[in-house]
Amino acid sequence: MNAAPASPVYRMPHPLPLDSGQVLEGCEIAYETYGTLAPDKSNAVLVCHALTGDQYLASPHPITGKPGWWERMVGPGKPIDTDRHFVICANVIGSCMGSTGPASPAPDGAPYAMRFPVITIRDMVRGLVALLDGLGIERLHAVVGGSMGGMQALSLAANWPERASRVLVIASTARHSAQNIAFHEVGRQAIMADPAWNEGDYYAADAKPDNGLAVARMAAHITYLSEAGLTEKFGRRLQDRDAKGFGFDAEFQVESYLRYQGSGFTRRFDANSYLYITRAMDYFDIAEEHGGKLADAFAGTQARFCIVSFDTDWLYPTSESRHVVHALNAAGAKVSFVELSAPHGHDSFLLEHDQLDRVVKGFVE
Amino acid sequence: MNAAPASPVYRMPHPLPLDSGQVLEGCEIAYETYGTLAPDKSNAVLVCHALTGDQYLASPHPITGKPGWWERMVGPGKPIDTDRHFVICANVIGSCMGSTGPASPAPDGAPYAMRFPVITIRDMVRGLVALLDGLGIERLHAVVGGSMGGMQALSLAANWPERASRVLVIASTARHSAQNIAFHEVGRQAIMADPAWNEGDYYAADAKPDNGLAVARMAAHITYLSEAGLTEKFGRRLQDRDAKGFGFDAEFQVESYLRYQGSGFTRRFDANSYLYITRAMDYFDIAEEHGGKLADAFAGTQARFCIVSFDTDWLYPTSESRHVVHALNAAGAKVSFVELSAPHGHDSFLLEHDQLDRVVKGFVE
Repeated sequence: MNAAPASPVYRMPHPLPLDSGQVLEGCEIAYETYGTLAPDKSNAVLVCHALTGDQYLASPHPITGKPGWWERMVGPGKPIDTDRHFVICANVIGSCMGSTGPASPAPDGAPYAMRFPVITIRDMVRGLVALLDGLGIERLHAVVGGSMGGMQALSLAANWPERASRVLVIASTARHSAQNIAFHEVGRQAIMADPAWNEGDYYAADAKPDNGLAVARMAAHITYLSEAGLTEKFGRRLQDRDAKGFGFDAEFQVESYLRYQGSGFTRRFDANSYLYITRAMDYFDIAEEHGGKLADAFAGTQARFCIVSFDTDWLYPTSESRHVVHALNAAGAKVSFVELSAPHGHDSFLLEHDQLDRVVKGFVE
Repeated sequence: MNAAPASPVYRMPHPLPLDSGQVLEGCEIAYETYGTLAPDKSNAVLVCHALTGDQYLASPHPITGKPGWWERMVGPGKPIDTDRHFVICANVIGSCMGSTGPASPAPDGAPYAMRFPVITIRDMVRGLVALLDGLGIERLHAVVGGSMGGMQALSLAANWPERASRVLVIASTARHSAQNIAFHEVGRQAIMADPAWNEGDYYAADAKPDNGLAVARMAAHITYLSEAGLTEKFGRRLQDRDAKGFGFDAEFQVESYLRYQGSGFTRRFDANSYLYITRAMDYFDIAEEHGGKLADAFAGTQARFCIVSFDTDWLYPTSESRHVVHALNAAGAKVSFVELSAPHGHDSFLLEHDQLDRVVKGFVE
């Protein structure tokens, strides 16, 4: 987990203030860039990653060896064109791929573990803005994000409106619903129920709370897919057998798939980071941060917005995107909105989708 | 858990054959009855319980002390009127409230634990039919069930068509979908990940796999409620505090509620039973049992059917009920279908709903 990723790391010269009132000293942000920054620094595009994502946007992941998570979207001649744009993707604080998080050493040298302060989406964006400061980028050509990445894009637009000209939010929301919180709480309880979690103090132990983290991932993974997509992909088909085995092995393909998703995840993710990042998402409610009215969060914004939802996304359904669009309209912002049809639910933003490509290309270029 | 419930117990004189090819020796069925059996035994109504339900249909639960789970539906003058009908509700095999299940002694005297054979919904119904034989009831006036209870009602109608004149199926399905299986698999993995589960061998231990079982229940519980219902009931309201606490306590009401549901459940339910019953549900596919065509399962049936769904039920959505109705139509069965509007998702069948009351009363009387 903590094998040093190859990413460059920006170390903040000042303490990072947090919404909780605490500060992070010596905070570090690991990031990747693609393309070349223009001399006038006008071509920077910040892509924000999702809950379990990282900075390996368009380059291989150092642990899994898999291609970058949005390789199909970002690169030379691709919708976010690195021949034209300087694309930045940074690991959020609280995560575990090089940015400061629960696994990082606290000032006393030992891992923070649960001494890490509880953070918010706005705190993550504070970290990203600090990185932009460090890179000397005053104004982004665009900020782009799907899912939790979209929350960061909205938070940047609401709290640092002068920092981005274009804001592209995909399959996201301006607030976490009761059901969203409920699913995250199941995941957190699964982790905390694992004796190897040990109140978060497992970094020096032989056993990590992999069982709990795998269950958390499995529960979450179901929410990323549509019922129809699961049926299309797996239905009730059996795995490597012709008839029911009358046992508790993974007999159905969907069981086998979920177990694989769960166990694979534990090899690249830290359980405490999962606790902290889900907590940040559950706290997310831009309206609440701005006096209770979402439109007020975007008052006076000069940015152009594009909001994209998928019709089968039941995690952050189209109604949540419409809620954001209505608020932006009320704030007088320039906003376009598109609901795309896709069979695969929330995860559609990561999958092949020609219409999404065209929307992204058209908005970002 | 195994404190003897007060229910009468029917001990089968013959071994119970199972779909797996195994048999259960000395199988017992604990049941409750309400009302009086007519001399010609023509007024019996069998109510089948859901996954975590039991025989305490209209009388207090011996562990929780709470009223019966369908007290509002069953009783003198109620929609299932015990002044007229003799109502039977039996604990399914595999469960833990007095019927033979994983916690019961195997022939060697020790608890079955994971030596208990994997059962199916049809096996549960085999047990219920054996009980009806024992009670001398050849033909039910009606069989009624919601959720897994509806699966049993459909299975009875498909496999023992002469045993019921009326079949009422509420918020149910004729097959478990990939998403249904996926959620159950998360629950099973949560239980099995708990070291106290100990491969199912915990009946003599101090610790039971309560943490795993609680997580399983929490994940399942979300599927019983609608997103809108959760939002209406809890929204993003905080629990006993005015502001975010920046910690990992149950800060949101929905978290507190889920934790309560999880921990309360462990006091009345056996983790191994949860494994076996969810497995039985995942195996459920009436069409597969009848050559692949659902209509063939009901060929020649003389029973009257009533199928009820709720518009916000995303666990067993209306489309699944329509699928059953189409099959019944194709089989030439007498069937009525109603989709009821209710805000609370799958659990609506257990809650106050005047229209449901009228449908049940009109169909059963």
